[in-house]
Amino acid sequence: MASKRVSESATTFTEIVMPNDTNPMHNLMGGNLLKWMDIACGICASKHANRVAVTAAVDNVSFGRPIKIGDIVTISARMTRAFNSSMEIFVEVFKENFRTHEKVKCNEAYLTFVALDDDGRPVSVPEIEPENDDEKRRFVSALRRRELRLILAGRMKPEEAKELKQIFLNE
Amino acid sequence: MASKRVSESATTFTEIVMPNDTNPMHNLMGGNLLKWMDIACGICASKHANRVAVTAAVDNVSFGRPIKIGDIVTISARMTRAFNSSMEIFVEVFKENFRTHEKVKCNEAYLTFVALDDDGRPVSVPEIEPENDDEKRRFVSALRRRELRLILAGRMKPEEAKELKQIFLNE
Amino acid sequence: MASKRVSESATTFTEIVMPNDTNPMHNLMGGNLLKWMDIACGICASKHANRVAVTAAVDNVSFGRPIKIGDIVTISARMTRAFNSSMEIFVEVFKENFRTHEKVKCNEAYLTFVALDDDGRPVSVPEIEPENDDEKRRFVSALRRRELRLILAGRMKPEEAKELKQIFLNE
Amino acid sequence: MASKRVSESATTFTEIVMPNDTNPMHNLMGGNLLKWMDIACGICASKHANRVAVTAAVDNVSFGRPIKIGDIVTISARMTRAFNSSMEIFVEVFKENFRTHEKVKCNEAYLTFVALDDDGRPVSVPEIEPENDDEKRRFVSALRRRELRLILAGRMKPEEAKELKQIFLNE
Amino acid sequence: MASKRVSESATTFTEIVMPNDTNPMHNLMGGNLLKWMDIACGICASKHANRVAVTAAVDNVSFGRPIKIGDIVTISARMTRAFNSSMEIFVEVFKENFRTHEKVKCNEAYLTFVALDDDGRPVSVPEIEPENDDEKRRFVSALRRRELRLILAGRMKPEEAKELKQIFLNE
Amino acid sequence: MASKRVSESATTFTEIVMPNDTNPMHNLMGGNLLKWMDIACGICASKHANRVAVTAAVDNVSFGRPIKIGDIVTISARMTRAFNSSMEIFVEVFKENFRTHEKVKCNEAYLTFVALDDDGRPVSVPEIEPENDDEKRRFVSALRRRELRLILAGRMKPEEAKELKQIFLNE
Repeated sequence: MASKRVSESATTFTEIVMPNDTNPMHNLMGGNLLKWMDIACGICASKHANRVAVTAAVDNVSFGRPIKIGDIVTISARMTRAFNSSMEIFVEVFKENFRTHEKVKCNEAYLTFVALDDDGRPVSVPEIEPENDDEKRRFVSALRRRELRLILAGRMKPEEAKELKQIFLNE
Repeated sequence: MASKRVSESATTFTEIVMPNDTNPMHNLMGGNLLKWMDIACGICASKHANRVAVTAAVDNVSFGRPIKIGDIVTISARMTRAFNSSMEIFVEVFKENFRTHEKVKCNEAYLTFVALDDDGRPVSVPEIEPENDDEKRRFVSALRRRELRLILAGRMKPEEAKELKQIFLNE
Repeated sequence: MASKRVSESATTFTEIVMPNDTNPMHNLMGGNLLKWMDIACGICASKHANRVAVTAAVDNVSFGRPIKIGDIVTISARMTRAFNSSMEIFVEVFKENFRTHEKVKCNEAYLTFVALDDDGRPVSVPEIEPENDDEKRRFVSALRRRELRLILAGRMKPEEAKELKQIFLNE
Repeated sequence: MASKRVSESATTFTEIVMPNDTNPMHNLMGGNLLKWMDIACGICASKHANRVAVTAAVDNVSFGRPIKIGDIVTISARMTRAFNSSMEIFVEVFKENFRTHEKVKCNEAYLTFVALDDDGRPVSVPEIEPENDDEKRRFVSALRRRELRLILAGRMKPEEAKELKQIFLNE
Repeated sequence: MASKRVSESATTFTEIVMPNDTNPMHNLMGGNLLKWMDIACGICASKHANRVAVTAAVDNVSFGRPIKIGDIVTISARMTRAFNSSMEIFVEVFKENFRTHEKVKCNEAYLTFVALDDDGRPVSVPEIEPENDDEKRRFVSALRRRELRLILAGRMKPEEAKELKQIFLNE
Repeated sequence: MASKRVSESATTFTEIVMPNDTNPMHNLMGGNLLKWMDIACGICASKHANRVAVTAAVDNVSFGRPIKIGDIVTISARMTRAFNSSMEIFVEVFKENFRTHEKVKCNEAYLTFVALDDDGRPVSVPEIEPENDDEKRRFVSALRRRELRLILAGRMKPEEAKELKQIFLNE
């Protein structure tokens, strides 16, 4: 199975914050942003795998800047690395106010998807061939994030995590 | 400010999986479950704080068992601990098939919310008074999870994390 | 077929009133509340019958206290009695304002559901075994409500309604 | 305040049954039909009163014929009588299958709405001037239905209900 | 195949403008109105053809009067002419403010639908038998609009358009 | 007011076709595609004007290739030319099936938006500075389309349309 480039599945997803998407402060509810991030990553993973892809894990997401009603939200999802049937995707969220023309980064996160065949069983996906420095850096650090994910899910013991000692060295 | 009990804000949220909530395998999309978890925790946090509460962080969530169209999803959200204006909430997800009467736990996660005053500024919330063993265990381990969250968000250095060494000792 | 307890199918359903749920006075539209009551009762009936259950009748519902945008609506549905394939469910609606922590009862009603097999034909369901005084009282009064329902639907003559004379003795 | 004719506020409301409107038998969920009936009656009441009108009561509704996914649902709402600030509306539901061109009546019900001023207080509405036989018959029987409604809501004693003895004489 | 009258498929569609339907000026978004016009015409076409009917073309639509949140939108769709498997439908949009009782025409447009058999192939539909002057005028001018549509879609050369010279003579 | 480049407001909008977006053939309903095209163009116009922008006209749109449930729809919107307060936007629709990795163009259209100030009055917007050949060609042909639009809306007489004779020379 030939490896693929990040650009082949990179996905941009755009939404406008409508009244029903907001909390009583008229800001986008966190849960709606999570849903949109999941959709953007799901499209990206499906494009990479040419298969149905379902969410396997969402890493820690922190919400800082409030996103206002009427703001344009742009979500950018890119593959970082594939592990047999699972794919890690890096997602960035930007908000834009059309009056001020200001575009600000609000969040970033890593989501993991699994590719499924038509009977719902995991299937192998192509490897990622990182091209530029950012892609290469995320390709390498994906190993560390994967170990933390397995430990947090109780599926790896901390002492088995080779890359663990580097996990807190912020990339 | 008097402390409050976990039971005073405990929230149960129920949904049925409808066609538009599903992916092409007819299973609930991860993003929709995240949204429902966020709503349940948001209600719980608002009840505890008697304030508007907004999502500050979602810890690592992993998705294992697929939830089918027509399944009844029950989401249970309970406060674990308050830190000044922020509140950690423990959320569990169950699916139930009404034909088989089988009720199965699918996910659990920790979400953090911040209480806001009417101008959108963080305000203090009551402390939690844990009562039973489960509540006491989660009250204690909340410190470790908070440190990991701050480290992952780049707001604490690993060497400052006193509780860090216990983080991978699965509770 | 063994009888079942009320608690085995009791269902709590929670919603937050969002902008699109409201009328121009910013209060919850009656039709949305009816829909949520129907969903809560449908889940309850399906759990009791372990079958698909569809709405057969909604008794008189009156709407008194307005429910505001942002209010938390809790709907509690409990079986009262089963009649062969039909099930009567008692539903109560509470609103809660998270700022004032005030929880107020807004409505109550009786809905009737019918259990269906996979071909859409009515099938028998387990009897209800009332346990406490409230459950016993509603189990008995279900006969009167059923007669009124049949009369109003033109399927019973008033003179055949044995329990009729007690119908207006408000329980 | 001049009285108005039924035709001045008569409202037709059309919907197509979409996947998310259905239960697992692929039939329209009762709660969605109730919501649509409420919207149709609310438009009718607002037109009659030239005011915001909110749901005050839904009389007994029974559901007989299942309505299938893809069916066209037509809801017809017409004023029957006004009582100071409250308005009774008669609503009929028809389903139509576009392939067979068959149009069938599925339900009928009476809903009551109250007109509100801009501060949310009930205000008087014009009287109804019935014109044809159907309108006259429903104008008269509205008194009986109102008494039953008040008794069921616990706001009238059975012995005060002058029209009560006629209530079960099906019109 | 017997021809049919316009009245046999005439369709009225009603909606209330809700918060999520609006733009930041609190007016109905153009895209939502287009969607509602498409639904109304789709019902009309399906009724005429007794078949599934799908959108083939939307002619130039211009938006003049803003429609406010809370306004009642009535959409009226009527067949003008059938061409083998395609049907042209004339659609008019009215807004009504229930306080002022003012009903104003906002838009009109022509949409074209195609009838499909169960395998998704175009099938013939009954001819239209125009009855009154308006129906006859639109039946005749449908030829001109069809030519313009074919030219704009690049499927007819301008010089082949016999009715072309009349196209700008506003009916 | 300085002119702006097309790339400064170019907008990509992505959606997945969900069950509720489809007609009975399981294809995307035309009305939903129109709504998505309108949203994409509205974002593009708002970015160009740094103002609220509302739909003024939708030119003839024809629907050829059906878009299936589960398909990924990408909508690309780009300014062609500004006329005082109105902006013409060129929109292209692509569908993509993630299994076959096939990306196909389905539609294209021209929509016109008007920029409004905070009181809802039209305001001037920056001119467009076309850069490449495609942009220059659409900048020139915008005059012809504008004339046709004005004629079809009854606001220009055919004999005043200087560019009219070129309108049917398909670009």
